[in-house]
Order: sequence, then structure tokens, then C-alpha cells
Amino acid sequence: MRTIAVDMDGVLADVLALFLDLDARDFGRRKTLEEIEGVPELQAFARIHEYLHTDGFFRNPSVIADSQDVLYRLNQSYNVYIVSAATEYPKSLTDKQAWLNEHFPFITWQQIVFCGSKQIIRADLMIDDHLKNLDFFPGETYLFHAPHNAQLEAPRHRRVRSWREIATLLL
Amino acid sequence: MRTIAVDMDGVLADVLALFLDLDARDFGRRKTLEEIEGVPELQAFARIHEYLHTDGFFRNPSVIADSQDVLYRLNQSYNVYIVSAATEYPKSLTDKQAWLNEHFPFITWQQIVFCGSKQIIRADLMIDDHLKNLDFFPGETYLFHAPHNAQLEAPRHRRVRSWREIATLLL
Repeated sequence: MRTIAVDMDGVLADVLALFLDLDARDFGRRKTLEEIEGVPELQAFARIHEYLHTDGFFRNPSVIADSQDVLYRLNQSYNVYIVSAATEYPKSLTDKQAWLNEHFPFITWQQIVFCGSKQIIRADLMIDDHLKNLDFFPGETYLFHAPHNAQLEAPRHRRVRSWREIATLLL
Repeated sequence: MRTIAVDMDGVLADVLALFLDLDARDFGRRKTLEEIEGVPELQAFARIHEYLHTDGFFRNPSVIADSQDVLYRLNQSYNVYIVSAATEYPKSLTDKQAWLNEHFPFITWQQIVFCGSKQIIRADLMIDDHLKNLDFFPGETYLFHAPHNAQLEAPRHRRVRSWREIATLLL
């Protein structure tokens, strides 16, 4: 059975929508997706570090479209792990697990990994929105499309634009 | 540079001493190490699940002898990761990271992994006191000696009895 390592922020958890909300609150205008296309998150959202360190931030994101349904089905025929680079924000750990339990109740504690570097991860396929995670991974790689990675050249990784597309590829 | 995955409970954190203390509090007598040699932890300590779910349990263990000094030196010449099966106890996550920050300040957040199953871990060497973690690991394995594993046959794994012994093998 193949093993899939699935990222959390930007792949399951819609942190981008939260960044846009908080940035609009702080700067008085909601940025459009066109405006932030190709812009690294650190540049697009001036106070992003503050948001990420806010208590409860990681308990609140909404769920990325179709991820629940598709991941539920993948979980029937693959070894699925949720792998989140979370130890940079120690206060987020319990919130992240509670968020997963709420929105992905079929994912057991055995399937959850909170790490710093993902270079320690062994799997057959990694789905992630950041090249820093995919570039060091020796297996197959899907780059989950996001404005921050929209203009990056990543020929080694297959760009996927939705969970529907992932379903088509894997189910 | 070789990568080493180091377990936390029973290898860096002396949870056994805490189990013995709490068991003595609850049952009026402190068990000897001879008494629990070869006895699985679940049998040796009747209320172990309660202890593990107690708030703050994982913030309190003392440090296993010589682990700080030897791990500090290993960290100079290996890629060291601390890999703890922690997601079974979601409330432990923040405590575990705070404990590591206090006692192993040279270990960065990038080097910490909190997981459920360790089958997702890619490294060259794993140091652990539980066969359930070592048996599925494809690389080299050190079984860190503990009363609960003292009588297990584990010919594929090298039994190590102290951090001094690990230093001799790796430094």
C-alpha cells in the first residue's frame, strides 16, 4: 500500500483566507488573489508572523474545498499521513490536532506528524504547497497550487490545482 | 552526514522514575527495578494511562544520565532529530517541546518530530526503547535498555545500556 504525506496549511487548512481577512482588518482593504499571485507570503502579508503566533490562529481556518471527501476516500486505499511543519509554532500543536480531529475525524493520532523539517519523512508521495518541503523529498511530489507558488518554476513536481484533480490522479 | 532519530520517553526523558513515584503514591510501596524487569509497562504500572493523560506529566521528567552531553556532541557530526510518539497525548505536545527547549536547548524546532506511528520516519539510525518502533525501521537500530524491554529477544537491534555506550559507538 502506498504512503502519502499530506501537508496541512494551504492544502487542507485554508490559512490564505485567514491571512487575507487579518490583512484587510489591519490595512483597511482586502487584497485580491491577482494582486498576491507570485508574491511570497512574507511579502504579501506584512504582519504574517504576528498572525501565525496568535493564540488560536490554527484552530480557525476553514477547510479547503473537497479535501475532506477526497482524503476520506484516499484513506481507504493508501497509508495517509498528515505532515505539518508545526514545531516552529509550539502553541499551535494542540490546536492543529483539535482542528484535524474536528474536520478529518477519520484520521487517527497514528497518522499525524508535527515536525520542523520534512527531510525526515519517508513516504511514496508528498502533497505540499512549499518547494522547501518538496525539493528534498526523494519520492513523487505534487505541488498544491497557491498564489505564493503560482509563478515558481518547479518542473520536478506535478502542479495540482484542487482536491478534485488529486482524486482524478489517485483514485 | 548520517541522520539519527532519537526517541524521547525512556531515552532522553526519565518517565520510568515518574511512573515509579506515582505508582508508589497510589499503592503505598515503591517497586524495585528487579520486580519490574521484563514486565510490560502496562502491567507494571496499573494506572499508567491515567499518569500519561495527566496535565503536565511530560513537563516534569528528569533527564536520563549523560544524554545531554552525548547528544550535544552527536549534534555536531550527525543530523539529529528527536522523534517522539506524542500525538496519542495531544495535551503533551506543547509540554514536550518546552521540556526539550529547557533540557536540550541546542535542538532547534527544525529537529523535533511529534508523531503517532514512526513508520513514516526516514533516517539512518533509530534509537528507541520500544520494538514497535524499531521493528518497522529499515535502517540501523539501537534498542535503549529499559526494564520493560529487558527480556525481549531482539537480535536485529543492538541493545545499548547507556548514553556513554552510545558515545563509544558513534563518537
